Amino acid sequence: MSVPSDIEIAQKATLKPIVEIAEQLGLAADKIEPYGHYKAKINPNDVFAKPPKSKNSKLVLVTAINPTPAGEGKTTVTIGLTDALNRVHKQNQDGKRTIVALREPSVGPVFGIKGGAAGGGYAQVLPMEDINLHFTGDLHAIGAANNLLAALIDNHIYQGNALNIDPKQILWRRAMDMNDRQLRNIVSGLGNTTDGVMREGGFDITVASEVMAIFCLATDLADLKQRLGDILVAYSKDKKPIYAKDLNAHGAMTALLKEAIKPNLVQTIEGNPAILHGGPFANIAHGCNSVIATRTALHMADYTLTEAGFGADLGAEKFCDIKCRLSGLTPDAAVVVATIRALKYNGGASKDSLKQEDIAALEQGLPNLTKHIENLQEIFGLSVIVAINHFESDTDAEIEMVRKACKRLKVKVALTQVWEKGGAGGEDLAKALIELLDAADNSPNNKQDEFKFAYDTQMRIEDKIRTVAQRVYGANDIDISSTAKAKIQRLESLQLDKLPICIAKTQYSLSDNASLLGRPTGFNVQVRDISLSNGAGFIVVICGPIMRMPGLPKTPSAERIDVDEEGNIVGLF
Amino acid sequence: MSVPSDIEIAQKATLKPIVEIAEQLGLAADKIEPYGHYKAKINPNDVFAKPPKSKNSKLVLVTAINPTPAGEGKTTVTIGLTDALNRVHKQNQDGKRTIVALREPSVGPVFGIKGGAAGGGYAQVLPMEDINLHFTGDLHAIGAANNLLAALIDNHIYQGNALNIDPKQILWRRAMDMNDRQLRNIVSGLGNTTDGVMREGGFDITVASEVMAIFCLATDLADLKQRLGDILVAYSKDKKPIYAKDLNAHGAMTALLKEAIKPNLVQTIEGNPAILHGGPFANIAHGCNSVIATRTALHMADYTLTEAGFGADLGAEKFCDIKCRLSGLTPDAAVVVATIRALKYNGGASKDSLKQEDIAALEQGLPNLTKHIENLQEIFGLSVIVAINHFESDTDAEIEMVRKACKRLKVKVALTQVWEKGGAGGEDLAKALIELLDAADNSPNNKQDEFKFAYDTQMRIEDKIRTVAQRVYGANDIDISSTAKAKIQRLESLQLDKLPICIAKTQYSLSDNASLLGRPTGFNVQVRDISLSNGAGFIVVICGPIMRMPGLPKTPSAERIDVDEEGNIVGLF
Repeated sequence: MSVPSDIEIAQKATLKPIVEIAEQLGLAADKIEPYGHYKAKINPNDVFAKPPKSKNSKLVLVTAINPTPAGEGKTTVTIGLTDALNRVHKQNQDGKRTIVALREPSVGPVFGIKGGAAGGGYAQVLPMEDINLHFTGDLHAIGAANNLLAALIDNHIYQGNALNIDPKQILWRRAMDMNDRQLRNIVSGLGNTTDGVMREGGFDITVASEVMAIFCLATDLADLKQRLGDILVAYSKDKKPIYAKDLNAHGAMTALLKEAIKPNLVQTIEGNPAILHGGPFANIAHGCNSVIATRTALHMADYTLTEAGFGADLGAEKFCDIKCRLSGLTPDAAVVVATIRALKYNGGASKDSLKQEDIAALEQGLPNLTKHIENLQEIFGLSVIVAINHFESDTDAEIEMVRKACKRLKVKVALTQVWEKGGAGGEDLAKALIELLDAADNSPNNKQDEFKFAYDTQMRIEDKIRTVAQRVYGANDIDISSTAKAKIQRLESLQLDKLPICIAKTQYSLSDNASLLGRPTGFNVQVRDISLSNGAGFIVVICGPIMRMPGLPKTPSAERIDVDEEGNIVGLF
Repeated sequence: MSVPSDIEIAQKATLKPIVEIAEQLGLAADKIEPYGHYKAKINPNDVFAKPPKSKNSKLVLVTAINPTPAGEGKTTVTIGLTDALNRVHKQNQDGKRTIVALREPSVGPVFGIKGGAAGGGYAQVLPMEDINLHFTGDLHAIGAANNLLAALIDNHIYQGNALNIDPKQILWRRAMDMNDRQLRNIVSGLGNTTDGVMREGGFDITVASEVMAIFCLATDLADLKQRLGDILVAYSKDKKPIYAKDLNAHGAMTALLKEAIKPNLVQTIEGNPAILHGGPFANIAHGCNSVIATRTALHMADYTLTEAGFGADLGAEKFCDIKCRLSGLTPDAAVVVATIRALKYNGGASKDSLKQEDIAALEQGLPNLTKHIENLQEIFGLSVIVAINHFESDTDAEIEMVRKACKRLKVKVALTQVWEKGGAGGEDLAKALIELLDAADNSPNNKQDEFKFAYDTQMRIEDKIRTVAQRVYGANDIDISSTAKAKIQRLESLQLDKLPICIAKTQYSLSDNASLLGRPTGFNVQVRDISLSNGAGFIVVICGPIMRMPGLPKTPSAERIDVDEEGNIVGLF
């Protein structure tokens, strides 16, 4: 089946004015803040001032098996399933509404090799060019807040250093929304005596900034400000922690984020409301859209779909243990996206052979899926449904094998073809999901009682890491480097250790070793380093090399991105 | 007279919805792109598709004497005069309209010591908080385009350096919209072999980027792209010039600027349309809002007021010799703003004594004003009117002395009190300006014939500099450093020298020595360095130390800027 490129589909789509999308949600034109005719910011206070659309509003997490070069299409399925659910609501005339709440994309990677972060095929959020370039400016505002704090730290030292900040122990880095490896490690403050104080430092891509994580975990403007103030920026020469509030930075940082913190409203290709807001890394941060956006969606919807970065070992774990724990959100179900191709890759098939039927590889790879399902059911207490994102090359025998595996686990499964067919390609999945949620409503168990976290935050840091490694990843144990041990001791001595942990490891394996596919066993997770995101409210546990500032490839996509004579963007994807 | 703070006045003002402001201009709601309810972008193509409002549309430059610590209030007078002209149009029932076209402010200085760049008192453009913080994101887009080019240069070297770029001769710097002295001089590319290539570099504040100058001189999107491609970014090891187009950077940079390049529509405090767009430095760049914005305003107005940075020696000279020359715009008149206080300061009065009558100091200082008037009349062929921005401490005798001096030069003069009284305080000036323009219409001379440049671009660089120094500044001659001489020779040998010059010197004196007030004579201008802004289309002539990246003060205003419990920004000014 021939499907045009994402940007061709996007540019051919007829968009509804954003005021019409808002009207669907009961928001009058004067209650939204338009950014052009097809994007708007919503003031959550206006939303929460009204009663919720449903007292039984459902929150569904879309997650996935471990990503592979074959691609799983988690975002695409999330968007397509949103359109599918809205189709089913219409067919059923039940008056219900599904809203999707997603992360917003970073500009930097657009100029490297990455595709859009706005879905694909006939399952996209629009206007895709705007969403991928600047959007409503949230990323720029986050970068500015990050860099204002950095400038205030260096200025404080330059102006006399009353707080006795140790320039060798500054934890705060600068940020830029650009793939720019040249800025990873720099020496700044060179030049004359009036040009600052010489020290080592560097830049992260903006989405890796703790400000982004805070932005996504804050419950309102006051909470945002408090969290910004709580950022641990440095240690003094006498080893005391220095926070952003010690520099009086948090008020101005909040002023820079005052508009950005309002969720962004756009639409799916089928004209359903979509909320895109915030987008932290899924390794050193928790990889979910903002709490404010999710709550706003829940308030206006019967069903809210959301997703979390990478596979369920990183994304769903952090969604539950960090986002839901810190915000009090309770998910009702999880959709696990898998492809036959990716499962075969997980079972050892080579990248080039994925179009051929390979029952043996599929059987070898299936345990990756089953482990994620078990985790979601047993550790987190979630109802689970599997979405097979269908490719033409999938054979009946392969599909049947996945169905059987799911049956053994008593898990519903449905094929989806939303990339080729839009919402129409996701109706089976939508109906199965509705059945699952209805069944949970009719069950005697209360979802609040069922939903559990993987660990207790009051445990010691080491025990929290071990618990996630063993329960979620299937590790034997953990090995902690001496660097990490020293940092753990420091956090314990400062009583900054009773927070959730945020493990940064490879997304390609359930383990911390990218080459261990399927469902690896017998491994120890290597804990290399520890850092504290005190404002966000989690402890980052670094296992293996983690890229906080990507680079550009040999031939960056920037070289083909252009504006044609009619002013249209071309070459974006 | 007691006037509340700028932000108090701004927050108490009742704003009209931006769609109403646009309707005044004949732009339907679907023809503007709203950014919230009080800001919008205008598509110039939509404006130019209609016939102009007036075939006799007037362009008036508001300029000033050399700035002093006493303050002149050029922007405030420009905005107040706009409201005053619109009051007079209403009184006269002549159906005419005045639009103001101004620079948009940079975020960085807001957190340092600088006040707003949106006027003051009862002569402001609104919404002032938004305008001063992010606005419609233009500055961020310009910064992103600047930094994409930087990333592409370093990536090119890292990926094999096919163009043989000499890392010691990279001319392109990174940009950030922040007062951050720490980033003036850095070494980047440290770390491992995968972390780029080690070299010296640095950051300028975004408004100092050549991209900003290009943005403000481009006539449309195609011209923007061509100019971006023409940026000279480096020399190769075999001394060949390397342009942005050699890196295929200009298309993607244009894509990043595609929305930003549309002018921003806001309103004055009295509800008249104001266009704020672009804001380059007035030393290393030409200090004027965008050509596109000025043209858009001219098309929709009978009178367009605009301004240029610093005093007339820098601002008006560059407005004429760079902006008007490169774009084909022809100004109809110049308003020269002066204060009695600043003239006394120019005449040697101390900063603390400016409230006392001091006829002797005023007489000493007046030649600063008269030199600027002579320049505008004789060098550029402009009709001139003087606006005395009135302070309570001004005495009748002082005012009379300025009036007499203007009379001797056959120049109209009017008092304005727009800061305290809004447009009502500028009606005398407005009426005098209308008379001046009407008289010019009735004169047998054609304004295109009258308007002249200070020099011919085909002259040699050295001769162009000498001409401006002698004619505009009143210098004896110029002294060129050996560094500057070598660079001039290089530009001549590359045939890149037939461009207008953009002199970067102190704004505080007609000379290049900040301590020479009044109308200095007998000095030589010291040319320290030369750089080429080839995309913008001018040669920067650096006389004295020029700050491209400001720092924060001991107690930055960031420490008092905050968001209150109701979500309002406080402490901004």
